[in-house]
Amino acid sequence: MDKIRVAVIGANGYTGFMLLRLLAAHKHADVAYVTSRSEAGKYVWELYPALEGAYPQLKFSEYDKSAVENSDVAFTALPHTAAAEIGGALVDGGVKLIDLSADFRYASKALYESTYGVTHPRADLLSEAVYGLCELNRDKIKTARIVGNPGCYTTAAILALRPLVESGLIDKTGVIVDAKSGVTGAGRKSDVAYSFCETDDNFKVYSAVGHRHTTEIEEKTGIPSLIFTPHLLPVKRGILETIYAKTMAKDLREIAACYEKAYKGEKFVRICGSSLPELKTVRGSNCAAIGFALDSANGMVKIVSVIDNLIKGASGQAVQNMNIMFGFDEAEGLPAVGEHL
Amino acid sequence: MDKIRVAVIGANGYTGFMLLRLLAAHKHADVAYVTSRSEAGKYVWELYPALEGAYPQLKFSEYDKSAVENSDVAFTALPHTAAAEIGGALVDGGVKLIDLSADFRYASKALYESTYGVTHPRADLLSEAVYGLCELNRDKIKTARIVGNPGCYTTAAILALRPLVESGLIDKTGVIVDAKSGVTGAGRKSDVAYSFCETDDNFKVYSAVGHRHTTEIEEKTGIPSLIFTPHLLPVKRGILETIYAKTMAKDLREIAACYEKAYKGEKFVRICGSSLPELKTVRGSNCAAIGFALDSANGMVKIVSVIDNLIKGASGQAVQNMNIMFGFDEAEGLPAVGEHL
Amino acid sequence: MDKIRVAVIGANGYTGFMLLRLLAAHKHADVAYVTSRSEAGKYVWELYPALEGAYPQLKFSEYDKSAVENSDVAFTALPHTAAAEIGGALVDGGVKLIDLSADFRYASKALYESTYGVTHPRADLLSEAVYGLCELNRDKIKTARIVGNPGCYTTAAILALRPLVESGLIDKTGVIVDAKSGVTGAGRKSDVAYSFCETDDNFKVYSAVGHRHTTEIEEKTGIPSLIFTPHLLPVKRGILETIYAKTMAKDLREIAACYEKAYKGEKFVRICGSSLPELKTVRGSNCAAIGFALDSANGMVKIVSVIDNLIKGASGQAVQNMNIMFGFDEAEGLPAVGEHL
Amino acid sequence: MDKIRVAVIGANGYTGFMLLRLLAAHKHADVAYVTSRSEAGKYVWELYPALEGAYPQLKFSEYDKSAVENSDVAFTALPHTAAAEIGGALVDGGVKLIDLSADFRYASKALYESTYGVTHPRADLLSEAVYGLCELNRDKIKTARIVGNPGCYTTAAILALRPLVESGLIDKTGVIVDAKSGVTGAGRKSDVAYSFCETDDNFKVYSAVGHRHTTEIEEKTGIPSLIFTPHLLPVKRGILETIYAKTMAKDLREIAACYEKAYKGEKFVRICGSSLPELKTVRGSNCAAIGFALDSANGMVKIVSVIDNLIKGASGQAVQNMNIMFGFDEAEGLPAVGEHL
Repeated sequence: MDKIRVAVIGANGYTGFMLLRLLAAHKHADVAYVTSRSEAGKYVWELYPALEGAYPQLKFSEYDKSAVENSDVAFTALPHTAAAEIGGALVDGGVKLIDLSADFRYASKALYESTYGVTHPRADLLSEAVYGLCELNRDKIKTARIVGNPGCYTTAAILALRPLVESGLIDKTGVIVDAKSGVTGAGRKSDVAYSFCETDDNFKVYSAVGHRHTTEIEEKTGIPSLIFTPHLLPVKRGILETIYAKTMAKDLREIAACYEKAYKGEKFVRICGSSLPELKTVRGSNCAAIGFALDSANGMVKIVSVIDNLIKGASGQAVQNMNIMFGFDEAEGLPAVGEHL
Repeated sequence: MDKIRVAVIGANGYTGFMLLRLLAAHKHADVAYVTSRSEAGKYVWELYPALEGAYPQLKFSEYDKSAVENSDVAFTALPHTAAAEIGGALVDGGVKLIDLSADFRYASKALYESTYGVTHPRADLLSEAVYGLCELNRDKIKTARIVGNPGCYTTAAILALRPLVESGLIDKTGVIVDAKSGVTGAGRKSDVAYSFCETDDNFKVYSAVGHRHTTEIEEKTGIPSLIFTPHLLPVKRGILETIYAKTMAKDLREIAACYEKAYKGEKFVRICGSSLPELKTVRGSNCAAIGFALDSANGMVKIVSVIDNLIKGASGQAVQNMNIMFGFDEAEGLPAVGEHL
Repeated sequence: MDKIRVAVIGANGYTGFMLLRLLAAHKHADVAYVTSRSEAGKYVWELYPALEGAYPQLKFSEYDKSAVENSDVAFTALPHTAAAEIGGALVDGGVKLIDLSADFRYASKALYESTYGVTHPRADLLSEAVYGLCELNRDKIKTARIVGNPGCYTTAAILALRPLVESGLIDKTGVIVDAKSGVTGAGRKSDVAYSFCETDDNFKVYSAVGHRHTTEIEEKTGIPSLIFTPHLLPVKRGILETIYAKTMAKDLREIAACYEKAYKGEKFVRICGSSLPELKTVRGSNCAAIGFALDSANGMVKIVSVIDNLIKGASGQAVQNMNIMFGFDEAEGLPAVGEHL
Repeated sequence: MDKIRVAVIGANGYTGFMLLRLLAAHKHADVAYVTSRSEAGKYVWELYPALEGAYPQLKFSEYDKSAVENSDVAFTALPHTAAAEIGGALVDGGVKLIDLSADFRYASKALYESTYGVTHPRADLLSEAVYGLCELNRDKIKTARIVGNPGCYTTAAILALRPLVESGLIDKTGVIVDAKSGVTGAGRKSDVAYSFCETDDNFKVYSAVGHRHTTEIEEKTGIPSLIFTPHLLPVKRGILETIYAKTMAKDLREIAACYEKAYKGEKFVRICGSSLPELKTVRGSNCAAIGFALDSANGMVKIVSVIDNLIKGASGQAVQNMNIMFGFDEAEGLPAVGEHL
């Protein structure tokens, strides 16, 4: 099989790095073109020496639409609205698009615009864009021209919540997602707040109310008013969400059965039951892992959902989407085994 | 003023270390006697070289009741039941007791016994023991012979919850405490689960249901059925609790006013309002810091409560109790400024 | 091509884990048998949940020689002397052996015995054992029945030092290796000295004089009396060695030319010149990276050599040795791109 | 005793923070004035919430010479040359100066100027400035108007090397200082290179040749050409230096006797002998700790010297200098017990 040509637009950040790291091991993809305004002209390995062996000659370029149109697929890792503008133009030019920003995630233009406080520059494309949570939308992704790759917090939350909501096992009101993320979730930043000295050995809440991922989770799960609190962990990679919901389930087996039915045969979702997953269970892999416990006295289920925010929560799922769109083995290039250490 | 003689029983663990570290700077206390079964005969600085300057000659001894009876006060840092047995005998012999185990924390013998699965060996002393949360029970502590020093999770939770419960600003049902603790909370352990390789760069829930501190918080706050989930942070020291409760407060000022009234003039409790406190705000100090946010859409208050688990959550509060019991300046020997770095 | 059958003897430790993690992605190898005395009967994923997807049915067994003899190759991750006894018997029975202990590393029986303070139980096999530093001994490894897989510190040191010694660019006397290792180098341990609380945020020298790897480096480089100091870094994985040697080189290019000649075409050795490599350059990969600087005022070259101690320093090199022994692509199953994050 | 009035010029960085933290507990000092160009107008606790209890009303000001001249002593934590200009003017105005930059450290103007690549703006003051390594220059400090507070690396190196050089126990040629520092050594920085994601779990050499502290150590020890290599540890605070020197000492006791003589009665220098000190031995305290081992085969002594870079390596020593200059107890306000945890 010939290899497809891949472009990564905005490749200098951490999701860009992880795309390059994963694609380096992909049998059917060639990274042909990577852009970065701030790093244009540099070799990729000057920024990321770890990539030297894989990309000895690849340089960051300024963005040039005609160069990208040579590609079969483009990943856009750009700020919102810029992603829709540039990505939309690429789609117009015949390139398939996997966008890692929020621009093509929402079905509702209004919800996107109120959440991000902007006007959507390519609202004309929203109706055909597919939300790229692979396990939920696989069939639509197969034929999509545009995939809106899900957010990191949202991936962990939706995978955990949607089967229970759909089967009526939990009450949709009063659901709480207490979410903890590693620092790569904030991106590659020159900001004293994310410096080692201010972050290591610390732990904090940020965006105590109104984090943007809240509405994305609400739209995709049908939960009308989610209570969502993100925290910053002193680790680089990984998200763990502790989720609280009123449950109608009589016992853990009912919960387990619901998940097992929803994710039967899925390579990248593990149901761990009462052996709750930890960050190290999945870090370094494209897996989500879900465990749960019952607080019977309060009629409450506690769900623990973990992912590697840069892999299943961003670049890994983006590659998984690419695999689905091009008919490759869905697991190609994607690590299924966590690092543990 | 003459110095009082202090004994630390079970001094080799981390609460013992922190007692010694704090007492080294205390103007009115002399550490006269420290015991440890496993380390008897060693200099304290062989185990903790950082303490060499403060205690060049102090050695761990085997426990010997007659030696301890020489002391004005004993801190017991022993497993539950052993603490009550040994500590109870010391009280019988005229020594004041500050016990860091759970043995003298509960008003209800039955609740203690069902929580810990043991028979209380000195239930005769329960009625006179005072729960040593200094800001709540200061007057009783002044004249107490026995103080049950609060648990770490419970200190952070009770300080945050009790004023709101008492003033009727939150609903006592459905309260959730999502708690995250540093690893010193587990003590000084030869256990692969707490090794650096298994803990660093990781994050996990443990005791998803049924953690023992749950009943202690319930008894002290009047919350009938608390939902409590402890997590293990990859940091050494510090607890941050994210607390969710249905609130009747109309706005943040009502919450703030309640806390300010409750803790007016308190040196070791800071009310941070919507500038939520972080671990580094208090680590290294005896302070608790409390912040809050309102999720109006859900009628929910989110409270963030932080302490250093080894100081305000254990040894610092124990010294604060000693200061109250002996009429010293309540802040003597206790750092009021967090480390930040 | 049929897959070979692989046994891992002593698989519960971290080198065992990493062997299993790497072999899970290996095209030509099937892990048929794993042993552990302490974990026998458990599923591998009970100890390492990250491996559940790769080995859903694999259990640790008690060691049983007849079961292992079914294998094409055995990896022994056992204490020294036990490795030679068990591994030697397997070789007698026709199984190829890659031993991760020190038992088959030394050419000199006397040096091994004085270094480890034991009698070699299978000295009869020493003359045919090949030292498995792949880049140096590739041809001998191809036909070896027994490979002594190098130590972690030694791999980083020998790769850095041998080309310079052989080309006469450095003085063999007075060479200093100031070595810093992550905690996985100490193995999977229930030891308070390696607990998170005692190790995080700390840094220390250990074995200030007389570390066992000293003689292994001396034997393989011809340096008569190496000055070697190992330190413990608060990271899980990675070794960085800062090496000091008197040099006869006039400039950096002479040093660079020597390394480039020695490692031309090597996939797993990167020569970085004056852009000194860091732990993150190689962590997660089977690569060694070597950089250098000249202190002209002192006629001294400073060499920086880094590896991932669990991969190139142990299990990765072991798999590389297997690939060479069985005629597979030498890079099969081995990550060539560092994690960076 | 009346309190002295203290000004901190350039107080927003980490040495400024640590000065404020230490002075908060000082019996004889009042922080009357703190400046910061970037933070002027903010409360100190807005930047450092941990300091709220100690300084509820203190604000950063723009620098105003007439305001500072009200002070008894000024600490300058400014870039080099700016420190000499501003500090020099304060001295002219009658304020005692403790400068934390390099401007008043060197006896040799030429060496300062070649090391820092600038012209000294107040060379007229160099001859009266005293190098503030308290244990070496105590008598001169007592009467100094200007103290040049030593660098962090240099404090650890000079304390370890000078007694051995002076007693002729080591050869002054070929001395190597392999130094490892925590990240606070780089200051409070908005720089992606010091972000959590690029620093945590990593370790690297920086300034492989030519670090500026080299000449400061050379001038103060009389070592003509030091080999110095700084590394960046993934910890916030602490410096550990592994020092290699040819020794004429016959055994460890000769080394120990030399140090004990040099530091007899010193409260902040501990001689640990062959029980080598670790970062946690001193972190959080104003102590230096020195241990050593003999590599007899190579006639080499290995010395391990540790300090907390922000305390004994900067702000703690600055306060110690203030105590000496004003006749206070030299230990006032200075923690003598390490944190260990």
